[in-house]
Amino acid sequence: MPMRMSTLFLRTLREDPADAEVPSHRLLVRAGYIRRVSPGIYTWLPLGLKVLRRVETIVREEMDAIGAQELLFPALLPREPYEATGRWTEYGPNIFRLKDRKDQDYLLGPTHEELFTLAVKDLYSSYKDLPVTLYQIQTKYRDEARPRAGVLRGREFVMKDAYSFDVDDAGLAKSYDAQREAYVRIFDRLGFHYVIVEAMAGAMGGSKSEEFLATAENGEDTYVRCPHCGYAANVEAVRVPVPDAVDASGVPAAHVEDTPDTPTIASLVELLDARFPRDDRPWAAGDTLKNVIVKVTQPDGTSEVLAIGVPGDREVDDKRLSAQLEPATYEIFDDFASLPQLVKGYIGPGALGADKPAGVRYLLDPRVVDGTRWVTGADQPGHHVVDLVKGRDFDADGTIEAAEVRVGDACPSCGHGLEAARGIEMGHIFQLGRKYAESLGLKVLDENGKLVTVTMGSYGVGVSRAVAAVAEGNHDELGLVWPRQLSPADVHVVATGKDDAVFLKAQEICQGLEAAGLEVLYDDRKGVSPGVKFKDSELIGVPTIVVVGRGLADGEVEIKDRRSGERRAVPVDDAVREVLAEVRTA
Amino acid sequence: MPMRMSTLFLRTLREDPADAEVPSHRLLVRAGYIRRVSPGIYTWLPLGLKVLRRVETIVREEMDAIGAQELLFPALLPREPYEATGRWTEYGPNIFRLKDRKDQDYLLGPTHEELFTLAVKDLYSSYKDLPVTLYQIQTKYRDEARPRAGVLRGREFVMKDAYSFDVDDAGLAKSYDAQREAYVRIFDRLGFHYVIVEAMAGAMGGSKSEEFLATAENGEDTYVRCPHCGYAANVEAVRVPVPDAVDASGVPAAHVEDTPDTPTIASLVELLDARFPRDDRPWAAGDTLKNVIVKVTQPDGTSEVLAIGVPGDREVDDKRLSAQLEPATYEIFDDFASLPQLVKGYIGPGALGADKPAGVRYLLDPRVVDGTRWVTGADQPGHHVVDLVKGRDFDADGTIEAAEVRVGDACPSCGHGLEAARGIEMGHIFQLGRKYAESLGLKVLDENGKLVTVTMGSYGVGVSRAVAAVAEGNHDELGLVWPRQLSPADVHVVATGKDDAVFLKAQEICQGLEAAGLEVLYDDRKGVSPGVKFKDSELIGVPTIVVVGRGLADGEVEIKDRRSGERRAVPVDDAVREVLAEVRTA
Repeated sequence: MPMRMSTLFLRTLREDPADAEVPSHRLLVRAGYIRRVSPGIYTWLPLGLKVLRRVETIVREEMDAIGAQELLFPALLPREPYEATGRWTEYGPNIFRLKDRKDQDYLLGPTHEELFTLAVKDLYSSYKDLPVTLYQIQTKYRDEARPRAGVLRGREFVMKDAYSFDVDDAGLAKSYDAQREAYVRIFDRLGFHYVIVEAMAGAMGGSKSEEFLATAENGEDTYVRCPHCGYAANVEAVRVPVPDAVDASGVPAAHVEDTPDTPTIASLVELLDARFPRDDRPWAAGDTLKNVIVKVTQPDGTSEVLAIGVPGDREVDDKRLSAQLEPATYEIFDDFASLPQLVKGYIGPGALGADKPAGVRYLLDPRVVDGTRWVTGADQPGHHVVDLVKGRDFDADGTIEAAEVRVGDACPSCGHGLEAARGIEMGHIFQLGRKYAESLGLKVLDENGKLVTVTMGSYGVGVSRAVAAVAEGNHDELGLVWPRQLSPADVHVVATGKDDAVFLKAQEICQGLEAAGLEVLYDDRKGVSPGVKFKDSELIGVPTIVVVGRGLADGEVEIKDRRSGERRAVPVDDAVREVLAEVRTA
Repeated sequence: MPMRMSTLFLRTLREDPADAEVPSHRLLVRAGYIRRVSPGIYTWLPLGLKVLRRVETIVREEMDAIGAQELLFPALLPREPYEATGRWTEYGPNIFRLKDRKDQDYLLGPTHEELFTLAVKDLYSSYKDLPVTLYQIQTKYRDEARPRAGVLRGREFVMKDAYSFDVDDAGLAKSYDAQREAYVRIFDRLGFHYVIVEAMAGAMGGSKSEEFLATAENGEDTYVRCPHCGYAANVEAVRVPVPDAVDASGVPAAHVEDTPDTPTIASLVELLDARFPRDDRPWAAGDTLKNVIVKVTQPDGTSEVLAIGVPGDREVDDKRLSAQLEPATYEIFDDFASLPQLVKGYIGPGALGADKPAGVRYLLDPRVVDGTRWVTGADQPGHHVVDLVKGRDFDADGTIEAAEVRVGDACPSCGHGLEAARGIEMGHIFQLGRKYAESLGLKVLDENGKLVTVTMGSYGVGVSRAVAAVAEGNHDELGLVWPRQLSPADVHVVATGKDDAVFLKAQEICQGLEAAGLEVLYDDRKGVSPGVKFKDSELIGVPTIVVVGRGLADGEVEIKDRRSGERRAVPVDDAVREVLAEVRTA
């Protein structure tokens, strides 16, 4: 039976919903795929559910093909395992917590590392049981601060999450590669443009980590790419190429200068140019060293003061610093009264060197290599120190990747200038390591009868998000344009006019298409104008549209390609064959 | 690819789990289908998930076949719609409530009447849009006081819930009948013995209401049936056949008697027999009228005192009384000090007649018809009134179906004696009426342009519960015995011994079966004894088992029917053909 527009639970809207910021959200609501129930919480109407299921099927097929095994954990989870791994606290306000009638604590699962780990611990005990990769396609919950863009970033959403369990790192690398290959197939089949970027493992710990981003102008995630060698990375994950040390033997000794009225780096540079003109080039912001002070707080509540030294032409990037510090968080330090060695605006080699207060750490941008010379604060108001050489005049406790990444920065892989681009995070695979296995005691006996901790990989796909991401990349000003494999129907048959013969013939074509195995959406509405029907078909976005109408008098129907807009008249008796050819070669 | 036991995420247990009370729970855990995470909250392991999906598919196909349309509501729901219908309060401790980061109230959906109603209100506005029936297959949540029996009564569970929307009662009756027929097909296909019983609509209001119960000795639900005419009803729904009024013209005037030392009905009957022997037969408990006093509290907190008069040989049945009073609740009244007219143990026609305190209601069992004569309390300690005739000497405010139903009671349909039986509620269909449409303002324009309130039907199937209910009805002392259509695999191929030739041949048979479209579970484990493999295959319960082992030397394999235990040797080259014949004719 075709889906009949006369009875289908669907109403298209001519107006954009007031809260829609991005095209996918606007169009999925207008075309009757989703409806908002609460912020970030949506109902999947019949057409939307069909697309969602098609995404699920593709993901499931590719997981099954690499031998991953599907199971299904509950979404309502007891506190204890999340307490054991520290995440009950770490998640802060980002998860939904609740109590049952016996006052026991529960949460709605945001991700299920704990449950997967405990399931393997429950069933397995020997290296012979491994490797195993398990997955589920499940509804998950996160109490996002800013749910946005419809189902692109929701608070209730569908995810595929998979975890691999291996006895050693070589096994993990193999499991990871198998997932990576499956992801490439999944994202190819979903049919959007995507890029695989190096990523930080973040709160999860672990080593290798890659994200699959759908490229999208409206994407929330910024990444950088190298047009020369193909390198791509999340901003958080970009590693600054470390320059070679510089020979500073000709640099004069560091000297403190009176630098009044230089509240900004620009004013300092101006003063330097006026007072100490350089032979080779004017002074630049990049010649100064800016020391940014933050207070870092660990999940257990302990905190420390961290000083970060970056070239004066770069800001500390919030995302990059946050990623480095996770699971700790930071705030800008402002309690200068408690640390009088730090002179606000003039923090320099004294306060961060010989006079450094106990408990303060000092980390430098990796560009600040031995032999580089800098102008920085002189630890007293209105004074800077010039010709300060790293390694000769000052040093630090280490380096940190916290400075902003800029277009034109050198590619860490080939040195060419980097470009910036935006995307939507659709998948994330990473080598999680032993963090969860250690917290929850997942060990197996190895070949020698010794207990060893299992190592894990983590592999997620945003299934409901994929519906929006595909819509984001497949629409025009008239509406959605689904890739064939995700379209809620294979063909949209539109009958126009009032002539019973038209509806009879349209019905016959539907039956022919269905007999050939196609799913058909049939606009059989009477009393609705052809114009409205055409507009609806464009909005809904089934890739092939068959119009049965006035042309029938001449023995013809029209086949329209939604994406190109091309139309062609074909003899009515060829309609089914022509559509089949189009659908199947596509 | 077959599911290989060597890698399948499965461990069978030889011991029963400590908390398992019923066979389905015990066996589903032991055979590796489910695992408990928290009380009433379970993980579906790979084999269990396969059975769950097969149930879902059957339900979905039958819903689609009658034109019901699938959508998917969220499980995390805002308070407001449930507030509008009063259920936020009515549900009491039976739902999970939580707050989001902005302190807004949410609940985990126990049933979705509100969301279905609002969705139709959102999209539809005219009688021309109706009828429509919508459904979802979704994870639901109830904070059961006593979660039990594994997935039979869980706190997180999968349900199919459908609602029909019609413009008038005739339409509702038609939608109801279509669902009823689909339910018959669903329960036939699920393959268990079931009975359709008349039910109370309960908290939901509405008129016609039927439950589909899987017959099961361990069932939580008691029902009665008539072996003569086939009538079946929930205990709550049984209606007492009302006898004709009796001619009481020969009955002497009521007389109060001193009845010392008669604290129980039995002692009263003994005294009556000694002091006032009857000519026709001895006195019986059924000749006395017992007045039970309860306090009834409405959801809004208001309360009243209710007196219930039942023949002395019957108790007031908690379930029947609760069903009559819903959504109000009751407790036994004990504040006799506040109503001195009611003399505890001797409440009689004075306190419930002429001297009845304001605000007390008096309802009688329907058997207490005009002209019947009774012995009851005389409103003073140690005294009873005899020859009290209903209609002549006392009356009440109405009748109530609260007395217990007993085996042998007359069938309301044919008068034959009723039997008691037990079952598991698997489905419930009922005519919900206009309750939700009224609370939430779901109206459409009728043919005359007038707004009319839509009438609804409600149709639920316990999908995850069905897995347990089928297991409850399909097992023996060795393990599970799945009906073919629900089995996690069509065939279980077991290779025994150490001979490589055996495993090669078993593998070949698996391929042959899969090429023919069957799903295969293959026990390819090496170093596991044949005894353990046979035990596992019996526990897991795939209906057809193929053993490839020692017989292979003689060119034979064994085909075993799990249910009957029958085994037969077949030539190895016929194995695939023989299995196919068995699976397909079954």
